[in-house]
Amino acid sequence: MRETYHEALSKVVDDLVSMTNRVQTAVDGATVALLDADLTAAEKVISEDADLDRLHDDVENRCFVLLARQSPVAGELRTIVAALRMVADLARMGDLAAHIAKIARMRYPKHAVPESIEPNFQRMAVLATEMTEIAGRTLRERNILDAEKMADDDEEMDTLRTMQFTELLGDEWAHGVQAAVDCALLGRYYERIADHAVIMGSRVIYIVTGLHPEGDNWSIA
Amino acid sequence: MRETYHEALSKVVDDLVSMTNRVQTAVDGATVALLDADLTAAEKVISEDADLDRLHDDVENRCFVLLARQSPVAGELRTIVAALRMVADLARMGDLAAHIAKIARMRYPKHAVPESIEPNFQRMAVLATEMTEIAGRTLRERNILDAEKMADDDEEMDTLRTMQFTELLGDEWAHGVQAAVDCALLGRYYERIADHAVIMGSRVIYIVTGLHPEGDNWSIA
Repeated sequence: MRETYHEALSKVVDDLVSMTNRVQTAVDGATVALLDADLTAAEKVISEDADLDRLHDDVENRCFVLLARQSPVAGELRTIVAALRMVADLARMGDLAAHIAKIARMRYPKHAVPESIEPNFQRMAVLATEMTEIAGRTLRERNILDAEKMADDDEEMDTLRTMQFTELLGDEWAHGVQAAVDCALLGRYYERIADHAVIMGSRVIYIVTGLHPEGDNWSIA
Repeated sequence: MRETYHEALSKVVDDLVSMTNRVQTAVDGATVALLDADLTAAEKVISEDADLDRLHDDVENRCFVLLARQSPVAGELRTIVAALRMVADLARMGDLAAHIAKIARMRYPKHAVPESIEPNFQRMAVLATEMTEIAGRTLRERNILDAEKMADDDEEMDTLRTMQFTELLGDEWAHGVQAAVDCALLGRYYERIADHAVIMGSRVIYIVTGLHPEGDNWSIA
């Protein structure tokens, strides 16, 4: 019985890792859709978001069963509680990638992002994917250091967001209101994907150590 | 022992209800800050957000203790799991209210929202507060019907958001890029507060019935 329990829990963690891979693919696809004005890529991200939602429901239900089935010991309990939250983070990250793809689709065949601000979004996208990858790897390897490294990426993400506003609201912005509004929302979506990746890192630290890291975004769900 | 357990669980639910009241106050305060360009109101919402975060951590820890202390029966388990998520929703709603207040503070002494689009935001704010109030009342009274009524408000919120974009991106928009960007983000924040209220309603249905309502936003955390 204990072994089956462990196996079921271990399967939950494996599924979270594979959901993380799917989220990475979704963020990459959304970025291609956005920066190449690629309608097929946009449609793919949007339709595959439903798979992530189904996976979410499945993993969530299995966590409930594990919580109900027998009194889990401390480490198991932490893992299940963290898993319940990570699966919600991952579903949300998928939604955010789909939001990005929807803006790309809405503006197609035009580019939603003007050329002058493309490098900024390109870098935001690289960071968002990298941070998601770190979250997945940290979970797989239960490696605390990777989660800490993520803080640097997050700081760069904040800087990019500030630079974005400087450009959008500057006198030299010649792309009109619609492009500015699109960029402000797109930047917000990438930023939130990164936030969730940071939170996922915190949740892994919690699984491993039982402690919430100081000064993290733990309370932001 | 059982009675103490029930008391502790009941205290968690009471604290969620009181956090909901605080979130309502925060959303109201943020709206005053925004529509009256009231700096004092803005500062108050921003500084009180830390209290909500502390309450979040406290309630969360008590839920962990309840989960670990003894194997809860089905209804209790559902309540604790739902409480863990609702407390995260409430912390996030507080953050969103603070985001609104920060935009008001950034533009002070100017108004962030141009007069022509003020009625739209006024109504969004009324709905966000009302939906938060319904979520709190539903939780207090465990009344399923209230959560279902919330769907109507949510639909109106979506309509208001669409109207916003029509105005921001229309030819008659004469308020420039900065006001448009501010309004797009502010609209997003009110919309997300409403989303979390809807999700909270779903979580109460789950506590009461053990079922996730069909077609809800359960997966959006």
